[in-house]
Formats: sequence, C-alpha cells, structure tokens
Amino acid sequence: MFFDDLPVGFTFTTGSREVPLGEMIEFAQKYDPQPFHVDEKAAQETPYGGLIASGFQTMAVTFLLTLDANIWNEASLGSPGVDELRWLLPVRPGDTLHAKGEVTGAEPSKSRPHIGRTRIRYDTYNQNAERVMTYTTTHILRRRPTAG
Amino acid sequence: MFFDDLPVGFTFTTGSREVPLGEMIEFAQKYDPQPFHVDEKAAQETPYGGLIASGFQTMAVTFLLTLDANIWNEASLGSPGVDELRWLLPVRPGDTLHAKGEVTGAEPSKSRPHIGRTRIRYDTYNQNAERVMTYTTTHILRRRPTAG
Repeated sequence: MFFDDLPVGFTFTTGSREVPLGEMIEFAQKYDPQPFHVDEKAAQETPYGGLIASGFQTMAVTFLLTLDANIWNEASLGSPGVDELRWLLPVRPGDTLHAKGEVTGAEPSKSRPHIGRTRIRYDTYNQNAERVMTYTTTHILRRRPTAG
Repeated sequence: MFFDDLPVGFTFTTGSREVPLGEMIEFAQKYDPQPFHVDEKAAQETPYGGLIASGFQTMAVTFLLTLDANIWNEASLGSPGVDELRWLLPVRPGDTLHAKGEVTGAEPSKSRPHIGRTRIRYDTYNQNAERVMTYTTTHILRRRPTAG
C-alpha cells in the first residue's frame, strides 16, 4: 500500500505475539535492568507485585507486530519520530499482545510530490483486551506512481 | 536525588557506550528486521548506504545510559510516557553514544504531596558530537521526606 491507500480513518489490527518470561528478562538485563524488570523477588516488593516488561520492549514488540501486519512496509521511507507515547498498564510475563492502528493524519508533501507524511496512532492490547500502551508514529510513505 | 533536587534547568551528561555491529543485528533480527537494519548488502542499496541501528535500539541504549548515570533512580516511581521522540541521524555499527539530560518541567503533585512530575529532555550524541536522537520523558519522582 502507498500513501494514497491510507486515508485518515483507515484502521487495521495486527496479529498477536506472546512476551515470554525469558525474553522479558533478557531484554531488561541488556537495556533496562531495574529490579521490577529483572528480579522476581525484588519485583514482588514493588507496587507492581511482580515482574513487568520494560516499556521499551513493549514498544519494540508493538513495532514488530505492525511490521508483520505489512501495511506500509513497501512504501516506507522511514520515520522522523514518535509522539504521545504512554504506558498505561503493566505487561506481565506470558501476556499476549496485539495492536490496532488508525490513520490520524495524511499530508502530501508540497515540495516532494512523490511522498507524503502519514500519522498512525497505535494502541497495544493484552489478551484481556486491556489497552497497555499507545503512541503515534509519523511515517514517510511513497505515493502511488500515478498520483501526485 | 529526589524531585526537589532536580529543578528546571538542571543538566547532566551520561557516560558513553558503543553500539557494536553484532548487538545491532541481534536487536534488529528480534524486533525490527527491516533490510537496512539486518542485511549489510541490502542496506548498501538504500539511501542509508549501509547498516543502521533500529531507532528503538537507540532509544533503549539511551535509556540504559541515563539509568547508569543514576540521577533519578532512587526516587523513581516510573514513567507515564515519552513525547517528541525524533530520530535525527542514523546510528551506524561501532558508533559510541552518550546523552545529555535537561530538566524542562518540574511540577509537585497537588493531590499527593510526596511526589512530583519531572520532565527531562534527553539528547543523544555520537562520537562526532552529532545529535542523533531526542525525546522528552516524564518521570514520577519521590519528594524529599522533609519537603512538601
């Protein structure tokens, strides 16, 4: 799909993916070794009451789910950034995540007629349909060769 | 340090950390297997002209650097989220990153006198002092026991 195939209001749902305990601890040991991410016993003493995933892993897993959904992959020229990232609920070992995407902005480039900027809000849910995270990414996407 | 030790304008610099080729490919194979993150040959055909790190890894490495700087760790009660994340320049195999933090907001809680919200803008630089990424995190921090 190209920029032109993703108007404001377009929605999609990704597949799902489990976040196993082992992966959770492995990620956290490398990038986010806070006690409530790496140490089961210490985690039980925190307000979380047990191990939870690093928010950066939840973000990376969500990105992987959206990549697997293959919505914008072929048209993508990268992303300048992300806005309004919110961690809403903890992700716990063995949780299974999926995400929903909704196009909230679509602006053709004025100076470069072959590309456009598409804003997509991603909401990540666990297996209980609880929303655990949300963020909005701006994607730079190629336009349909016939458009523009 | 507590909420009260981090007024608006407070700045700090983290240590530095190399991002080796192997770690870059390992992260990307797991979470962001786009050709320009995992396949040297394919990456050379892209506008990047070679392998670059997943932006999510750059974010995770930056977080690890800030954690190692040990500014807010003891006072931290977590983070509701991140705003204005921008990937400004590619991070390439073997680049060495460091980050600077600046407190841009500090608001004591009205309803909970023992905590406050501290906003910190993080800027990540490579070994050539080029800014490669920026984002702003809101931290929930404990106040000094004597304050509030």
